[in-house]
Amino acid sequence: MLENLKQRVYKMNMMLPKNNLVTMTSGNVSGRDPETNLVVIKPSGVLYDEMTPDDMVVVDLDGNVVEGKLKPSVDTATHLYVYRHRNDVNGIVHTHSPYATSFAALGRSIPVYLTAIADEFGCAIPVGPYAKIGGEEIGKAIVDYIGESPAILMKNHGVFTIGNSPEAALKAAVMVEDTAKTVHLSLLLGTPDVIPDEEVKRAHERYLTKYGQ
Amino acid sequence: MLENLKQRVYKMNMMLPKNNLVTMTSGNVSGRDPETNLVVIKPSGVLYDEMTPDDMVVVDLDGNVVEGKLKPSVDTATHLYVYRHRNDVNGIVHTHSPYATSFAALGRSIPVYLTAIADEFGCAIPVGPYAKIGGEEIGKAIVDYIGESPAILMKNHGVFTIGNSPEAALKAAVMVEDTAKTVHLSLLLGTPDVIPDEEVKRAHERYLTKYGQ
Amino acid sequence: MLENLKQRVYKMNMMLPKNNLVTMTSGNVSGRDPETNLVVIKPSGVLYDEMTPDDMVVVDLDGNVVEGKLKPSVDTATHLYVYRHRNDVNGIVHTHSPYATSFAALGRSIPVYLTAIADEFGCAIPVGPYAKIGGEEIGKAIVDYIGESPAILMKNHGVFTIGNSPEAALKAAVMVEDTAKTVHLSLLLGTPDVIPDEEVKRAHERYLTKYGQ
Amino acid sequence: MLENLKQRVYKMNMMLPKNNLVTMTSGNVSGRDPETNLVVIKPSGVLYDEMTPDDMVVVDLDGNVVEGKLKPSVDTATHLYVYRHRNDVNGIVHTHSPYATSFAALGRSIPVYLTAIADEFGCAIPVGPYAKIGGEEIGKAIVDYIGESPAILMKNHGVFTIGNSPEAALKAAVMVEDTAKTVHLSLLLGTPDVIPDEEVKRAHERYLTKYGQ
Repeated sequence: MLENLKQRVYKMNMMLPKNNLVTMTSGNVSGRDPETNLVVIKPSGVLYDEMTPDDMVVVDLDGNVVEGKLKPSVDTATHLYVYRHRNDVNGIVHTHSPYATSFAALGRSIPVYLTAIADEFGCAIPVGPYAKIGGEEIGKAIVDYIGESPAILMKNHGVFTIGNSPEAALKAAVMVEDTAKTVHLSLLLGTPDVIPDEEVKRAHERYLTKYGQ
Repeated sequence: MLENLKQRVYKMNMMLPKNNLVTMTSGNVSGRDPETNLVVIKPSGVLYDEMTPDDMVVVDLDGNVVEGKLKPSVDTATHLYVYRHRNDVNGIVHTHSPYATSFAALGRSIPVYLTAIADEFGCAIPVGPYAKIGGEEIGKAIVDYIGESPAILMKNHGVFTIGNSPEAALKAAVMVEDTAKTVHLSLLLGTPDVIPDEEVKRAHERYLTKYGQ
Repeated sequence: MLENLKQRVYKMNMMLPKNNLVTMTSGNVSGRDPETNLVVIKPSGVLYDEMTPDDMVVVDLDGNVVEGKLKPSVDTATHLYVYRHRNDVNGIVHTHSPYATSFAALGRSIPVYLTAIADEFGCAIPVGPYAKIGGEEIGKAIVDYIGESPAILMKNHGVFTIGNSPEAALKAAVMVEDTAKTVHLSLLLGTPDVIPDEEVKRAHERYLTKYGQ
Repeated sequence: MLENLKQRVYKMNMMLPKNNLVTMTSGNVSGRDPETNLVVIKPSGVLYDEMTPDDMVVVDLDGNVVEGKLKPSVDTATHLYVYRHRNDVNGIVHTHSPYATSFAALGRSIPVYLTAIADEFGCAIPVGPYAKIGGEEIGKAIVDYIGESPAILMKNHGVFTIGNSPEAALKAAVMVEDTAKTVHLSLLLGTPDVIPDEEVKRAHERYLTKYGQ
């Protein structure tokens, strides 16, 4: 079932090591099928190199395994909480990518210091509180703190990104690490001027309407 | 039309991910045909892995698409402004490469701390003001602030490089990131002595006349 | 003899350059066969690219070469001391991976600033004193200072990790560098809150019992 | 002529991009044939990807091209000065590798903070003064300041390493960047204790006599 979504979620999971966002078995991507509300997610603790599309696990929004021979990610309850409370979200990515997580460790948000942040995120990248892994606590924190942003930093932990597809959430995960690295490097030399809110809004709308094909 | 230039511009665009200067669809390279004044440029928002030479877009200096099935880069107006005001420029590269952009974010130029900067750039790497993406504003800032340098840092944004060919502009884009990284690492430990102007001039002239085949 | 263990130890040695934990011939992995107490270890000073499973050296716990045409690693006495004093250990990894070694150089332990440290290590990553390479001195320091942790930083030197298999020790070596990098980046911007001991214990136990297949 | 040495020098030049020590056409390796005193060196300004063993240039100790269709490296006079004044040297490497060059930019030597520095170098990595590229000035500074070390940092410039073979000089070039990176990362967090001279001497002698096959 959901063969196409399994292929897409598998492919986006494989983009995590390709973009150096994960180590060993860390990180995961899920995708929701908008018609059935079923969710396809990475299995728990499997090496990326050894993973196949068939290893993806299908769960319903209550966490029951509908199909799959492996256990789903330990972050499944987190993903499902977000899907239940955000109808606009059909893809979620979780990583411990190092530069973004260096801000997360400190519980520190990333201001709009770069046009790339204005374009991709449209606002400062917010930070959520420390929350326990494995239950709904992180999911609730994401929903409470992420606002309009497609990315959030979780204190002492890592990064979660959301999108209307697994591909959109993956792009946000790549871009949060990319911009976090540049901002980190800048902060070692000084403090950039923040781009004013009005200009951030203008730039983000231009990006959403004019960029791409 | 312009099949050879399309191949060259395509190849230089592919050098951006190969040299770790871009992420996802960011960055772009263009080239001008000196005989017809037509410009070949990367399409907007296309993944490098999926791009072919045929996807390159041909525009005239006023921005009219002359050939191409895709929309040109959102930075096209920037490139065209530079080509119209700098007859010596036949190649332009734009990136958000992280070390160079960490200086750009701060609106901070890079002094001649290294023989490699004297050789390649012949002067400090200048910085331009914040300017809006998508129109001619950035093009005007480049022309006003770049001077004799083949590279400029744009505040809160990234890097633009120019050259008498796409290949020369690409080399400048690679070298600005390379030298920006080394200078950044140095500044975390101290402040290097600046190489004196006279010596920079001598070294740059030697490099232009003696280096290479 | 021990063909299967030789293959496994070879494979884990090759994971060191694949994960960017070693340079040239530095670093090594060994594995103990629990039935015979024989140890398979990397030969001394051989380039990873030129190494084969047959180059692995088999030694007994007293350091006598039982099989192998090459000299074993100069760290063999260190590995053997640990195997003799820790019956639970069947795999050991040694690297100079740069971020972890930057803490080791300073004789500085890594606190539990990240959920990944709580999950993988269950405690702060301890640091041992300076000890001479080549004899049992480092082995004794590891046994004396490592406690419950699977990883230890040796002052002015590098990293040793242990596990109940070569694969487990390798995972610890990858994760100590990964978390050391993120912690290092955080410390350049501020000081993270330490995750409280009770929560570290809970998270580590959850990880050991719930994570993976 | 000297086909074997050309192959070896070519191979060591190709190790520079493989180990991320060079960018575009920067850097070079040479080797001396001890019997004829002829030197094989990289051609000037050629991309590594496009270079073949046949492109290596053979020069005598006075800089006359004995064989080769391309111009030799602009650093040839530097290499030859060192060969004429150091009979023990049969291989030289030059790079701008970023971490080592960040110390070079500052005119700052690298103390023996790590066992890897004691083992490979046997002393602090020295620094030489600013010297003009292209003539014998750098060669003289290397000979005057390098002492017993196989590596030297040249102020505002980069790294030169020497050895009794191109392979030995290449290993020194890789290890100077590797240890410079770890020391740099340490210095951002604190100041390591220097390993005492007596212990450095003991460790270096052990490494020279016990390490490897």
